[in-house]
Amino acid sequence: MAIKYELIKECKQTGARLGKIHTPHGTIETPIFMPVGTQATVKSMTPEELKEIESQIILSNTYHLYLRPGHDLVEKAGGLHKFMNWDRPILTDSGGFQVFSLGDLRKISEEGVEFRSHIDGSKHFISPEKAIEIQNSLGSDIIMAFDECAPYPADREYVKNSLERTTRWAKRCKKAHKNTDTQGLFGIIQGGIYKDMREQSAKEITELDFPGYAVGGLSVGEPKPLMYEVLEYTTPLMPKNKPRYLMGVGSPDCLIEGVIRGIDMFDCVLPTRIARNGTAMTSQGRVTIKQARFYDDFTPLDPECDCYTCRNYTKAYLRHLFKANEILSARLFSYHNLYFLLKLMKNIREAIKNDNLLDYRKEFFEKYGYEL
Amino acid sequence: MAIKYELIKECKQTGARLGKIHTPHGTIETPIFMPVGTQATVKSMTPEELKEIESQIILSNTYHLYLRPGHDLVEKAGGLHKFMNWDRPILTDSGGFQVFSLGDLRKISEEGVEFRSHIDGSKHFISPEKAIEIQNSLGSDIIMAFDECAPYPADREYVKNSLERTTRWAKRCKKAHKNTDTQGLFGIIQGGIYKDMREQSAKEITELDFPGYAVGGLSVGEPKPLMYEVLEYTTPLMPKNKPRYLMGVGSPDCLIEGVIRGIDMFDCVLPTRIARNGTAMTSQGRVTIKQARFYDDFTPLDPECDCYTCRNYTKAYLRHLFKANEILSARLFSYHNLYFLLKLMKNIREAIKNDNLLDYRKEFFEKYGYEL
Repeated sequence: MAIKYELIKECKQTGARLGKIHTPHGTIETPIFMPVGTQATVKSMTPEELKEIESQIILSNTYHLYLRPGHDLVEKAGGLHKFMNWDRPILTDSGGFQVFSLGDLRKISEEGVEFRSHIDGSKHFISPEKAIEIQNSLGSDIIMAFDECAPYPADREYVKNSLERTTRWAKRCKKAHKNTDTQGLFGIIQGGIYKDMREQSAKEITELDFPGYAVGGLSVGEPKPLMYEVLEYTTPLMPKNKPRYLMGVGSPDCLIEGVIRGIDMFDCVLPTRIARNGTAMTSQGRVTIKQARFYDDFTPLDPECDCYTCRNYTKAYLRHLFKANEILSARLFSYHNLYFLLKLMKNIREAIKNDNLLDYRKEFFEKYGYEL
Repeated sequence: MAIKYELIKECKQTGARLGKIHTPHGTIETPIFMPVGTQATVKSMTPEELKEIESQIILSNTYHLYLRPGHDLVEKAGGLHKFMNWDRPILTDSGGFQVFSLGDLRKISEEGVEFRSHIDGSKHFISPEKAIEIQNSLGSDIIMAFDECAPYPADREYVKNSLERTTRWAKRCKKAHKNTDTQGLFGIIQGGIYKDMREQSAKEITELDFPGYAVGGLSVGEPKPLMYEVLEYTTPLMPKNKPRYLMGVGSPDCLIEGVIRGIDMFDCVLPTRIARNGTAMTSQGRVTIKQARFYDDFTPLDPECDCYTCRNYTKAYLRHLFKANEILSARLFSYHNLYFLLKLMKNIREAIKNDNLLDYRKEFFEKYGYEL
């Protein structure tokens, strides 16, 4: 088995868990946030910087790498780790979410999804087998089953069809997966916001005995309380001895609430995307650097942060870089935001260890300006 | 005196010199290339990376900083060094070259230059006094006199008028300069491609006794052999006990030829600009990464280079990053190109020390594909 989950501790007050995921490229402490490196690079960052801020694992996108530079080239380069100079664990998604997001550019059938490239309009077809073949070429430590993610809102019939197709596709993925010794294939539970369907999907998917499971179909536009509600009844349906991954979630409140409901892994482009727009996550909430009041503000982005950006640069300088459209702006904000989220996860792990996660949440929310 | 030049050695075969420039922010070994940080940042690089590649001094642009974020803000921040987190020497240009380059957007008079901002079209006026006032606010170690740079080609009358105005402006700059203890003001010799005018300008400017001198009005479109010719008769007119700076020059051949003709300092946006276009300077000449032949080339940019980029990434990966428009591409190419030029200058200094600069030139030119 490529992937082994070790449960270290269960929180006494909440559903949170402390654990370790052992992978061929090292061990990950959970709960963890995974920075996203869509095109074989976490935007603006070097691998060394990712290590400096203690990134344990990163995520890369199968859809993008398949189109450019092509999984064959990555395989020829010796796999994704070597290609991008990252020797710690990598998780790749299946490409499913991306091709479904193409809207009019894709057509779903039982066999798979036909779509047109967002780069050059060329026609492509990804089936469950193809998604696994691509991920086998990439050589990521954790690969994801090709699922159908229902949009929000979607009616019961739509969701039922897509969760059942997801099960059939999960079986095909499992069968197609060649590198079971070096790559762990995770199953994905769908079912939208319908409790009975989450139960059905959880039952069908966990019966296939994957080394880890994701909760799919959340963070697709539904209100946060609804997402929390779905998590509350879904994670108890997932085996305790396997890691649980909530896909596409990265705002600080959702990370904490997700952990409290038993989630171990998260990923999201949020921290790096808002970074490129000059927005920082800080202990006092979001800072949007383009605001005029920061023109001559010579304090750091976050007075409580000890990251490279906050130790060396003022808001006035960061605002100047952003307004002048300088690359260093994207770098310094990306560095800070990822540092902030990884430190948040570290604090969460510490709080679970010390049995004070709810206190930590209260304190964090109050400062950040979230309502409990 | 803020700036002191120490002549260490004169080359026996050529006009090259080995020297040191002592500044309030440390000592620079010459001959040296200065990376350009136009908007208070060397594009895509951190100060730490600039130190890693042994940048001794950087250049920043007065025109740009005056317009954005404004020299008042930089002064309020504690000066340019503190604002941008760079504690080694900084040279600022006078803004003259930039405003003259605005073409239709500027009007020259004896008093100074009226121009419109390239950012928002707003009207501004820079006189010699204003150029010095701005640079006094910025607090750079070396500041430049506000000169009039004649274009190429330009007739004798135009060049004569502009060199004589440059002398009158140099006197006004000297008078306006407040921080003589902490900032060294360099004079600029004009005169285009006319020997008698270079003689006139050199005489007039050096009589004003600045702590350093630049050769202006070159690298503005004239053929390289003509630039070398002008240097050959101009540098002997410059005092031996002061540093000599050739403005706006940064291609490897011009650096070597400039040093041979007695130049100590160079700056140019070339290495970082071509970097953002995916072009590298290498020991075997230029590499343009978008070329299809690099698609599956798993060798480094430059097999003889030991920089971070060349130690860790293949051409295939760099090509992918460039084609995917990733920020890391600009970073890795900028890092390599600056490393390449700074190493070239280090090798040049070594060659002067060992009395084999002409051999070094021959070897370098042959590999790079230049004709001697």
